[in-house]
Amino acid sequence: MFNKKIDRISPYVPGISAESLKDRYPDCIKLASNENPWGPACSLADCAHVPIERYPDYTAHPLIHTLAKQLSVSPSQLILGNGSDELFQLIALATICPGDAILSSECTFSEYEFVAHITDASFVAAPLVNHTISIPNLIARITPHTKLIFIANPNNPTGTYVSHTAIEQLLENTPPHTLVVLDEAYAEYVTAPDYPRSMALVNQYPNLMVTRTFSKLYGLANLRVGYGIANPTIIQNLHKVRQPFNVNGLALECAYRSLSNHAFVQKTLTENTRGAAYLRDALARYNTHIPPSEANFLYIQFNDRSIDHLPDDLIRRGVIIRSMKRFGQTNAIRVTIGTSAQNERFIKELHACLTTP
Amino acid sequence: MFNKKIDRISPYVPGISAESLKDRYPDCIKLASNENPWGPACSLADCAHVPIERYPDYTAHPLIHTLAKQLSVSPSQLILGNGSDELFQLIALATICPGDAILSSECTFSEYEFVAHITDASFVAAPLVNHTISIPNLIARITPHTKLIFIANPNNPTGTYVSHTAIEQLLENTPPHTLVVLDEAYAEYVTAPDYPRSMALVNQYPNLMVTRTFSKLYGLANLRVGYGIANPTIIQNLHKVRQPFNVNGLALECAYRSLSNHAFVQKTLTENTRGAAYLRDALARYNTHIPPSEANFLYIQFNDRSIDHLPDDLIRRGVIIRSMKRFGQTNAIRVTIGTSAQNERFIKELHACLTTP
Repeated sequence: MFNKKIDRISPYVPGISAESLKDRYPDCIKLASNENPWGPACSLADCAHVPIERYPDYTAHPLIHTLAKQLSVSPSQLILGNGSDELFQLIALATICPGDAILSSECTFSEYEFVAHITDASFVAAPLVNHTISIPNLIARITPHTKLIFIANPNNPTGTYVSHTAIEQLLENTPPHTLVVLDEAYAEYVTAPDYPRSMALVNQYPNLMVTRTFSKLYGLANLRVGYGIANPTIIQNLHKVRQPFNVNGLALECAYRSLSNHAFVQKTLTENTRGAAYLRDALARYNTHIPPSEANFLYIQFNDRSIDHLPDDLIRRGVIIRSMKRFGQTNAIRVTIGTSAQNERFIKELHACLTTP
Repeated sequence: MFNKKIDRISPYVPGISAESLKDRYPDCIKLASNENPWGPACSLADCAHVPIERYPDYTAHPLIHTLAKQLSVSPSQLILGNGSDELFQLIALATICPGDAILSSECTFSEYEFVAHITDASFVAAPLVNHTISIPNLIARITPHTKLIFIANPNNPTGTYVSHTAIEQLLENTPPHTLVVLDEAYAEYVTAPDYPRSMALVNQYPNLMVTRTFSKLYGLANLRVGYGIANPTIIQNLHKVRQPFNVNGLALECAYRSLSNHAFVQKTLTENTRGAAYLRDALARYNTHIPPSEANFLYIQFNDRSIDHLPDDLIRRGVIIRSMKRFGQTNAIRVTIGTSAQNERFIKELHACLTTP
């Protein structure tokens, strides 16, 4: 009955929720899914007027026009998804033909490989260099079958980024029938001056698509809303494979209201910078390597020990972080930058784990 | 860049929202999408505790266990979707191989044809008989390539249903590699005694899947949550192609709370029966044929006139109903059974439209 392609799919393992552990560890904290520790940019109470018995009206809602204005693009260059996850799936559904390949990197967001499997595309992973996506390694792997190139920028889980010039170099070396997808889920956290000016690139290259999300900076992960920016022809074709009610109406309204909460955005960014500095400083006493992160999380590699048991040990102390075992990294973890209290708690419990025999 | 299959897709045309017309027609009513006119079975205020900055935890949430208990099935027989729409897509993604066909009926829910297009399956539509899905017509069209058979029961837009015996007959004549999908979006409205006892059939036939939704009786269309019931092997395979955060956390919580609002359910069903009787009675003065409806809407066929302009005329009078033109029916409309006030308003405006030259 089933298509054999699904045998290749290994189920995604989400971060353990604090909810699911609350009976055993009532005071547990979750630093495992790069959520916003300061909550959402919009209160549910502000959306009480949304009629939840009505189907969402994707086109009449002001979200797309407001986003377009903020990004200085046309509304016809925008599409919304049930999280960025769904956008990656729409992109693959609209483009992949039998025999096509999806190119991305090793040690990156697992969703790109997932959409390769569900569309029966082959998946090619270019090696990182210094925990960073390598544009030369990607270019070297482009073939006539490469239909999509996915780049997480900054990269999840390593936190590193690829520069404007490097992305330009990739686009100059990509054939016109190959779509480059820049997944900028963490773009708003970036401070590096040479980070891609991706809206300019979208207007310059007809085979570039950029995706962003309300799940991170705006703290709406539970509502599921991401968006994509590309030229109108691409967007029009993606709309064809989109379910008519793919984004729920509360997500539309909360996302729209979040866009104007500048104070929340500023606070999140300031606290994220402060938290990153605190964690780096506190972790300096261990023999670790932490690649420079432009996002709201740190990739922490322990140079002198296996930390196989660390994720489980931390859970027993009420701290949920992310193991990097699924990437074959048994000496690394990924930790979301939390509130000051959460960061201190993590450091305290980490120290206990590392020093308890 | 794009797969040619998408050229076959004609975009879904959703019901026009009252929201989108409120400037021109402030008092307009929508009877076009079979939503619950009594609102949702759960207030958003009861879900204020849901942390919207956290990713939804699909498996830890009590919804699946509560549903399983209510349906007397095992939780391993259940899967949730971003509306039933997404479940149909997951079913097609998991099963369709090159050369496969999807079988369904003419004049039925358009989503089945949509998922055929996005998975590049051919789509075969069996003719209705007396506005009712014909099991003999379906059986006659099963070939070795038929991978999926979709049956809306009750059928949308005609409101008619197929009996337990008829579905049994279909299952007895369906090869084991062909999955029969019973879309029971309106099941809770049905009063016919010989409506399929589909949970019993699911336990008897390993190639049967049933889908239901919280969008209709429970009034949660804007939140997007549907569910599917089948044997655990099918469910396990569908989970493989499911995005990890496909259902948002507010939908999980509202659906869970709605299940225990028995008073709301009772009121909705009583008022629906009353409204259907009122509408039938009021429409008897025109020369119409209205097939018996087991759902929350009526399919109204005008025997003696073309009603090409009626949907637009009604909009100009502030009443949104659904044209049946996309099914090639220029003399029929579909109307959701509303509150008493809405039903009376519809009849009043309809009369004005039909009698104004």
